[in-house]
Amino acid sequence: MNSIGVFGLGVMGANLALNMANKGEKVAVYNYTPDLTEAFQEKHPHENTTAYYELTQFIHSLEKPRKIFLMVTAGAVVDSVINSLLPLLEQGDIIMDGGNSNFQDSNRRYGYLKEKGFHFIGVGVSGGEEGALNGPSLMPSGDKEAYQHVAPILEKIAAQVDGKPCCSYLGKEGSGHYVKMVHNGIEYADMQLITEAYQFLRERLGLNVDEIAAIFAEWNKGELESYLMEITADILTHVDEETKKPLVDVILDQSGQKGTGKWTSQNALDTGVPLSIITESVFMRFLSNVKEERMMAEQELAGPNQLADAADKDQWVELVRQALFMGKIITYAQGFYQYKQASEQYNWDLQLDEIALIFRGGCIIRAGILNEISKAFKEDKELSNLLLSPYFKTILNNYQASMRKVVIKGMETGLALPCFNASLVYYDGYRSAKSGANLIQAQRDYFGAHTYQRVDKEGHFHTEW
Amino acid sequence: MNSIGVFGLGVMGANLALNMANKGEKVAVYNYTPDLTEAFQEKHPHENTTAYYELTQFIHSLEKPRKIFLMVTAGAVVDSVINSLLPLLEQGDIIMDGGNSNFQDSNRRYGYLKEKGFHFIGVGVSGGEEGALNGPSLMPSGDKEAYQHVAPILEKIAAQVDGKPCCSYLGKEGSGHYVKMVHNGIEYADMQLITEAYQFLRERLGLNVDEIAAIFAEWNKGELESYLMEITADILTHVDEETKKPLVDVILDQSGQKGTGKWTSQNALDTGVPLSIITESVFMRFLSNVKEERMMAEQELAGPNQLADAADKDQWVELVRQALFMGKIITYAQGFYQYKQASEQYNWDLQLDEIALIFRGGCIIRAGILNEISKAFKEDKELSNLLLSPYFKTILNNYQASMRKVVIKGMETGLALPCFNASLVYYDGYRSAKSGANLIQAQRDYFGAHTYQRVDKEGHFHTEW
Repeated sequence: MNSIGVFGLGVMGANLALNMANKGEKVAVYNYTPDLTEAFQEKHPHENTTAYYELTQFIHSLEKPRKIFLMVTAGAVVDSVINSLLPLLEQGDIIMDGGNSNFQDSNRRYGYLKEKGFHFIGVGVSGGEEGALNGPSLMPSGDKEAYQHVAPILEKIAAQVDGKPCCSYLGKEGSGHYVKMVHNGIEYADMQLITEAYQFLRERLGLNVDEIAAIFAEWNKGELESYLMEITADILTHVDEETKKPLVDVILDQSGQKGTGKWTSQNALDTGVPLSIITESVFMRFLSNVKEERMMAEQELAGPNQLADAADKDQWVELVRQALFMGKIITYAQGFYQYKQASEQYNWDLQLDEIALIFRGGCIIRAGILNEISKAFKEDKELSNLLLSPYFKTILNNYQASMRKVVIKGMETGLALPCFNASLVYYDGYRSAKSGANLIQAQRDYFGAHTYQRVDKEGHFHTEW
Repeated sequence: MNSIGVFGLGVMGANLALNMANKGEKVAVYNYTPDLTEAFQEKHPHENTTAYYELTQFIHSLEKPRKIFLMVTAGAVVDSVINSLLPLLEQGDIIMDGGNSNFQDSNRRYGYLKEKGFHFIGVGVSGGEEGALNGPSLMPSGDKEAYQHVAPILEKIAAQVDGKPCCSYLGKEGSGHYVKMVHNGIEYADMQLITEAYQFLRERLGLNVDEIAAIFAEWNKGELESYLMEITADILTHVDEETKKPLVDVILDQSGQKGTGKWTSQNALDTGVPLSIITESVFMRFLSNVKEERMMAEQELAGPNQLADAADKDQWVELVRQALFMGKIITYAQGFYQYKQASEQYNWDLQLDEIALIFRGGCIIRAGILNEISKAFKEDKELSNLLLSPYFKTILNNYQASMRKVVIKGMETGLALPCFNASLVYYDGYRSAKSGANLIQAQRDYFGAHTYQRVDKEGHFHTEW
């Protein structure tokens, strides 16, 4: 008998199956079309994997309760695969969905399967092809008891950091895919923040690509240590073979997206979370795509476009480093605030410290900072916003002046730094006991009789303006 | 026979019915519960209105094709009211929905009724109670032929500007409610921009409330002329009777929202529109609500909190005025870009110049600037972004340096100006022929093999990094 079945043999599914087999699991593999199954058998013969071409045989080869890991295209395909499996399953069998599914779909599937007597485990998977094979970050959710059946396998194939698997039970329903969604949002923001640091160094301090590659490699040894910092340093060392220019200079500045960043922002709007940095990073990808308009606008719209007047470049490099780290901290603060809100509003009981631990290995946003984030939420279970934790508060108090200098220099020299800006604006807004919302409430009461509260007594008041 | 029926006699429905009656229409009125119908009869006896307590009588009293204007709570209630009406109607009858419905619901209702042989006209209504009675801004959509039947009534009750009604056929399906939705998003941003100007004048230039009231009243005579500017100036003249303080100072700085601003941002994320200013204004309302955290954060997080070093206050007041107008222009540029995208993606054929005309009267965002916006889109039907129109381009080129000074001064003195900031960042990003997205594409190709395009030849490329 096989201990687990993997359904879907695209690169991610195939690599996850091999990962399981390498860890000693007996893995049944199946794909709807036989071509990928044949290719899998041919390219990756393994004593622990058995390929099936008949769905019934695939299912019947599994130990009970059966554990089936779906790795198929997110969306309607998942529903149709689930419906094709159900007649062959028995009560208590477990279906896992490892695709990039929308958490709302996972919520629905969780309820649908539960009602029919089956278990649904949504599993956020991060780490790309390489992670799938050697150790991804896994974000499972569903019924805790059902998770116990699959935990030994998932925790074995996950990345391991300090002897701890980057996989643990996160919460109810589709919360695993939710955690993955916000992870991707943070990834968008982190990429944009690094890009803004790069743009500042390149276009305002006038450093060349090699110099920046060396700076980023150096930064990666300190508190900015992260996978994205590391690969960006590496990217900047690549030279285009045809033109002999830095490869980054021949790449067109239009960026695509798969939609999870967008979902994160849309959900922040639903849950009442000021997720400004991630949202700006999504907007900047949109803006990148109107290249022709931007080329026209550059001719038509005035503004300074100049090198910064920065005599001491080394000093400025350090200011940018501090600004980048501050932006990163505030991105996590906003993202984890979103987890907290979602956990309360959806009644999921998410463990924020556990989420941070899971991100430490296997996934795209893995970074040194995550240990401290985990500690902050572990030490204070009620912590609402990372900015108020002792560790990060100290850094922010030390770095905010640097961030201010960099952002102001960007403004003075006409360089858009949307995520740096959004970080500082959020910081200043968050630390303002008094916001301007009293005037907005007055306006709303004026034109719409929406009423307002007062600072000096309870109740809702309306003025006949 | 009555020429039109109004279903739903809350304040808005009652006032719209009276508006119609005042304009000579014979209006049948009905409410699901008799209390509001009785109240209407008692408070507003009018020779042109007839109240009905039986739905069948209400319907039978109407000329064919019947025209029924619903003014009920947006959401499921609209569907149940529609379903209760259908058995009583005849093919070709027209149901209008004047509530704050989500445009996606209106799309669905449009299709549902069309299939059954009825007409659905979604009507965005802006102007609050006062507008409903004396002339609202109306944003109708649906089938153009069906609109011809209701046009004489709607155009008569709408606000009139320069002899033109603030009502015209906007497009297919639920596009009228869509136009209303983005209108509300612009309203959020406009309110926040005015608030930021107020905060800067008050907290950084140290002006008092009376001085600012006078400045706003003065601004309202120039290019910033608008309803929101006018009422804000008025708000600032109000004194709290109990404390004798300016009323704005005793109002709690936590602001609510009804959701249309949020919908606007969520839709921008779906349609690929960088709608940063409206979105920041929504986020700031969220942030305003964590008052206790903000009070704590003010003690814990460092930053400058000081008056600006501004010797010549009059000069600074003018800089703020220019910054505010620039923020307003860019808000409209983003919002109208969203209209353009939606029109193309949903195949609605929205007339941007008509939309701007409709907003000139009756609604909350009515403002002098709308004439020029309408002109810009009328003169150039292909215009993608308002920033590139000759009129606004000139203003932006003249004002961008002022905006820069104000935003930088905010940063230097620790004052969060989210919408001012987002405006300038968008301006600088939009006028950058070269964005940083090439580095982001390199990162995406590195960890996810997403491929990239090149600046020098066609195709999609992948590097083995």
